Amino acid sequence: MLDGEYSKERDQIRNLMQNSSTFDELFLYGPLDVDAHREQTLRAVKELIALKTVHLRDMVDNPKKFLMWFETISYCDPSVALKFAVQYNLWGGTILLLGTKKHHDRYLQDISDGKLLGVFGLTELGHGSNVNGLETTATFDLASKSFIINSPTWTSQKYWPGNISKHGKLATIFARLILGGVDKGVHAFVVPIRSEPTVLYPYGEVLEGVTIRDISYKSSYNGIDNGGLLFKNVKIPLENMLDRFSSVDENGKYHSEIPSNRHFGAMMSVFFIGRVCLSLLSLCSMKVGVAIALSYAYNRLQFGPPKQAEQPIINYTTTQRRLIPSIARAYAYDFAHKAISEPLGRAQDVLHSYSSGIKAFTSWDSVAALQLAREVAGGQGIRLHTRIGMLREHSDLVVTGEGDNTVLCQQVAKFLLAQYHKAMQSGSFSGELAYVNNLTGTTPSQVPIDLLSLSYQQLLLEHREYILVKELYQKIYGNNKTLATNSLEFYNKFNENLTLTIKVAKANVDRLVQGFFLDRIIKLTNTDPTTLTLLKNLCRLDSLVQIQKELGFYFNYNLLSSQKLYIQIDDTITQLCKDITPYSKHLTSAFAIPNKFHPLLNSIE
Amino acid sequence: MLDGEYSKERDQIRNLMQNSSTFDELFLYGPLDVDAHREQTLRAVKELIALKTVHLRDMVDNPKKFLMWFETISYCDPSVALKFAVQYNLWGGTILLLGTKKHHDRYLQDISDGKLLGVFGLTELGHGSNVNGLETTATFDLASKSFIINSPTWTSQKYWPGNISKHGKLATIFARLILGGVDKGVHAFVVPIRSEPTVLYPYGEVLEGVTIRDISYKSSYNGIDNGGLLFKNVKIPLENMLDRFSSVDENGKYHSEIPSNRHFGAMMSVFFIGRVCLSLLSLCSMKVGVAIALSYAYNRLQFGPPKQAEQPIINYTTTQRRLIPSIARAYAYDFAHKAISEPLGRAQDVLHSYSSGIKAFTSWDSVAALQLAREVAGGQGIRLHTRIGMLREHSDLVVTGEGDNTVLCQQVAKFLLAQYHKAMQSGSFSGELAYVNNLTGTTPSQVPIDLLSLSYQQLLLEHREYILVKELYQKIYGNNKTLATNSLEFYNKFNENLTLTIKVAKANVDRLVQGFFLDRIIKLTNTDPTTLTLLKNLCRLDSLVQIQKELGFYFNYNLLSSQKLYIQIDDTITQLCKDITPYSKHLTSAFAIPNKFHPLLNSIE
Ligand SMILES: Cc1cc2nc3c(=O)[nH]c(=O)nc-3n(C[C@H](O)[C@H](O)[C@H](O)COP(=O)(O)OP(=O)(O)OC[C@H]3O[C@@H](n4cnc5c(N)ncnc54)[C@H](O)[C@@H]3O)c2cc1C
Ligand SMILES: Cc1cc2nc3c(=O)[nH]c(=O)nc-3n(C[C@H](O)[C@H](O)[C@H](O)COP(=O)(O)OP(=O)(O)OC[C@H]3O[C@@H](n4cnc5c(N)ncnc54)[C@H](O)[C@@H]3O)c2cc1C
Repeated sequence: MLDGEYSKERDQIRNLMQNSSTFDELFLYGPLDVDAHREQTLRAVKELIALKTVHLRDMVDNPKKFLMWFETISYCDPSVALKFAVQYNLWGGTILLLGTKKHHDRYLQDISDGKLLGVFGLTELGHGSNVNGLETTATFDLASKSFIINSPTWTSQKYWPGNISKHGKLATIFARLILGGVDKGVHAFVVPIRSEPTVLYPYGEVLEGVTIRDISYKSSYNGIDNGGLLFKNVKIPLENMLDRFSSVDENGKYHSEIPSNRHFGAMMSVFFIGRVCLSLLSLCSMKVGVAIALSYAYNRLQFGPPKQAEQPIINYTTTQRRLIPSIARAYAYDFAHKAISEPLGRAQDVLHSYSSGIKAFTSWDSVAALQLAREVAGGQGIRLHTRIGMLREHSDLVVTGEGDNTVLCQQVAKFLLAQYHKAMQSGSFSGELAYVNNLTGTTPSQVPIDLLSLSYQQLLLEHREYILVKELYQKIYGNNKTLATNSLEFYNKFNENLTLTIKVAKANVDRLVQGFFLDRIIKLTNTDPTTLTLLKNLCRLDSLVQIQKELGFYFNYNLLSSQKLYIQIDDTITQLCKDITPYSKHLTSAFAIPNKFHPLLNSIE
Repeated sequence: MLDGEYSKERDQIRNLMQNSSTFDELFLYGPLDVDAHREQTLRAVKELIALKTVHLRDMVDNPKKFLMWFETISYCDPSVALKFAVQYNLWGGTILLLGTKKHHDRYLQDISDGKLLGVFGLTELGHGSNVNGLETTATFDLASKSFIINSPTWTSQKYWPGNISKHGKLATIFARLILGGVDKGVHAFVVPIRSEPTVLYPYGEVLEGVTIRDISYKSSYNGIDNGGLLFKNVKIPLENMLDRFSSVDENGKYHSEIPSNRHFGAMMSVFFIGRVCLSLLSLCSMKVGVAIALSYAYNRLQFGPPKQAEQPIINYTTTQRRLIPSIARAYAYDFAHKAISEPLGRAQDVLHSYSSGIKAFTSWDSVAALQLAREVAGGQGIRLHTRIGMLREHSDLVVTGEGDNTVLCQQVAKFLLAQYHKAMQSGSFSGELAYVNNLTGTTPSQVPIDLLSLSYQQLLLEHREYILVKELYQKIYGNNKTLATNSLEFYNKFNENLTLTIKVAKANVDRLVQGFFLDRIIKLTNTDPTTLTLLKNLCRLDSLVQIQKELGFYFNYNLLSSQKLYIQIDDTITQLCKDITPYSKHLTSAFAIPNKFHPLLNSIE
């Protein structure tokens, strides 16, 4: 049900991972040796590439296939997926998306084949979330017709990028372009950092003017050679500027198709797919961890009715409540990720908002689901061998990577705020908020409470998003409907209400995810009734759990009001979990996890 | 402010940890080598013992001192604290608390000196939460006047206990006493597992009949040599039975002071202090992780007002909201732990309920606080060097250790249910629910809303606990006021309502913790007004955050009702955080964390 169009390719990948010992997770069994882990990770990436299931160009030509691929390789130690992301999405992606034909001809095939390993050098020690503020410089030198790359301060060192401390030969370095003493803002350049390989240095020697540091031990992803990178007067030729959006000619004349205040945003927006990839990685971790805990819960007997045999802990309602909603959530997010990667010609700002919000809540929910899964597995959940703890660590990285969740929620809220503002000015709702037009006269308090109705739930979710956006609008534009978004007042008001931006983003994602789930259900015409009911129950459960999380909102805004609803909603969730539990193993078997990555399948240790 | 009576002793311990390289955390810098980690952990424990600040007997004679000690050693890699707990609280504790003079004379001093290392063998592979169901047997053999220890099945192996796979010489083994073919239930026995040390085997050779397995890599506590332990016809002399509560004489006659249905409970209740120790460990992890993230938040500049310099991320309201409530919580729990360890002669069942509930929510909240702290620290939060990720792992163990939280919450709920049941039968509230007598006529909806009033908040917290206990009572005793707690019907009804038991336990802990905080504030007579206001604000913030988590409850039961309260409460919390932020570094400096364990104090990496 979840494999989708590419089940053959997925099987190929899963078979490789199941059968090649390169994919054994060495951190489970032996001392965590960073060097060995890094080399094994690289080997694994190369074995995957050798399958030739996907090409770097699929990022643009066939994003759905590209995403399928990424999701499937996320089953194993996700250092592999991240290493792949560094090589394809980031290093390859900059060449593909910010470069032009000359760069494509020169680099793309070797990158796609895994022969030319590279670095995506965006983040600096001093600038992570606010990369637009980075400090590295690329100064045009008229005499030599070249750029000179420098790291003017300690904080300007490139910091974090994978492939820095060991494997990378070239790097795309984001730096401030300095032209005739004028700072033209951030642009991207290809900068060699290591020589051709030699016997002594299989990945080449670090070039002159380049200094490299090793970041070393992390709580996860130790297969990635993250590092720090400093430049001192490193000269690169003119053609190494990635010049899709803007260029410098031999005489030092600057040309750009995009106004300077939108230049950085345009460069960054091309990385939409990278965010979806990382989001899929955390979704995959969630699926696997929850499936492992479910196996334990079925195998583990503990306590039982008076004078009777012990019973499996899956029978306890708290166990069901800790696992079944996560399964529902995993299905909901699975459909949502597929939906946003459909080639529907959505505008860039819509895609940016969707991918930001969905990535934020997928990763947060994944971490939370894995915490519950680990608790269900008791002491076994602590063993590396059981994988759940590591999976949580893996997902955790996604929370602040490829855009920090808190910052991304602000962007979702800003997007919706702009839509609302437009509606206030034009007098009608359109775009993302078009649904508001259908809300009048249908406040949930006017229709009978029906907690299990998909459309009733939809109404609750829509009203919440709408009201919260309105509240945010009031807080910010309440006294001044024409407040400029780049004013100090806007900045201050926005920052005073940051927790509200998170609530807004959450409401938006809840509505979107439920909407995509409903679309999916509607499209399932040939499905047997049992499966259809099951899917509907998953959708109901997932929405009701999200509604319960914001119950205070619903009561306070009179969208729900009825005595004992607090208990009743909780009981309804418990009942839904109970109804779904008998199907839970089927549901997780659709995750199609290679056995190698599914410990406790038939045992309690 | 937090050191309390033993600040001299605490300083001694902190100085040792700061200055001895034995306390350097090797997993931060080098490959995670389990063997080296285990040996270093043992050395660290021995260096701490050499300080002679505490004696094993203090567990009973001076529990406050014992707890202070335990909390203070939790700053460093908590493998050390856990190793100490295995040796003192568990292995030593069984000898002290379940043994009699002959055992004390023979073992106590050597245990206290760290010379005689031992195992606390309770958990089995097949029985963790339900240890009363364990399978190991101790069969009395009349001919030889001895017990014969056996592991009859694979699942009966002792599983997890520290000191098994490397260091333990003796073990206290919990086993079913079989007397003349009759199973007399679980009792404890001292069983040697290793010989005297030899040159080749510095911890002795594994004795005949004993099989040992190594559990190996875990996501944390790799300094502990957890293992599996199987016995085949291991003979031990009669006097090795720990006979404080019950004994077998030479003729195989059984004697016990306690009825058999309460025997296991009596044995377990003596370990109250162990639970408080582990709870303190997770509290300490929370303090340290939050302090580290706070330092980062002050040092880290990112974004800023239009055309102005970047500002520290502590200025963002979301950063404050992710750290300041955790500081408030840490203070609240600190006071609560001190309060429950006062020698006030509380009954065993009260102490059991208090320690269970407080341990459950301290560890859960600690894990959650450390997740937020890690997110505040961005990518740095992933580096082992930064410690936050590891601290979260450490705390996480406590969630299912020394009583799994979900199961402990059931016990709190059962305790309160019994109190309520008694009240229904006697017609008046007493004991834990005595406060209910003062509630009539004071429903919060009848007094003006005052979110910042400590007594108004108390009213809200009391009403919630009372109402939820009442709801649970209704669900279980609604149709049958004389339902027996050991009936199948009780079992089924209770299990249908397990999520409600967690809500009840949470409400109980919220009320208790706030109550202890208020006690503390009242007792602070000589405090300067700034500190007093600050403490009050911490108390207000902490309660309001807990109230917000259950806002749906308050609205649905009409304890709160006012338009826009949803937003207003959130804004009030934001404002409290803002008010407290300027004092936040003072507040965390009272945690007195040795610098060695406080990275990012003056840097961003
Ligand atoms: C394993 C790993 C691999 C990586 N690989 C690469 C790579 O290949 N290439 C690359 O360029 N980078 C890479 N990164 C960097 C990664 O993208 C950054 O960690 C990420 O962008 C977050 O930046 P930061 O760590 O500096 O966090 P910070 O920016 O310091 O954020 C810290 C906290 O501040 C908060 N914050 C910041 N600004 C605001 C605001 N305006 N309002 C409210 N809160 C705010 C955030 O919510 C966050 O919680 C990698 C990181 C890791 C850990
Ligand atoms: C590092 C480490 C050190 C340890 N050291 C020792 C030691 O020195 N000595 C020792 O004896 N033990 C030790 N233990 C064991 C520890 O005490 C157990 O892990 C703990 O008791 C939980 O048991 P379990 O792991 O078997 O979980 P399980 O009992 O399998 O619990 C799994 C899940 O089932 C749920 N569950 C169980 N029963 C119910 C129910 N009735 N209703 C609802 N839910 C239920 C629980 O909530 C839990 O989430 C150690 C464990 C670890 C990880």
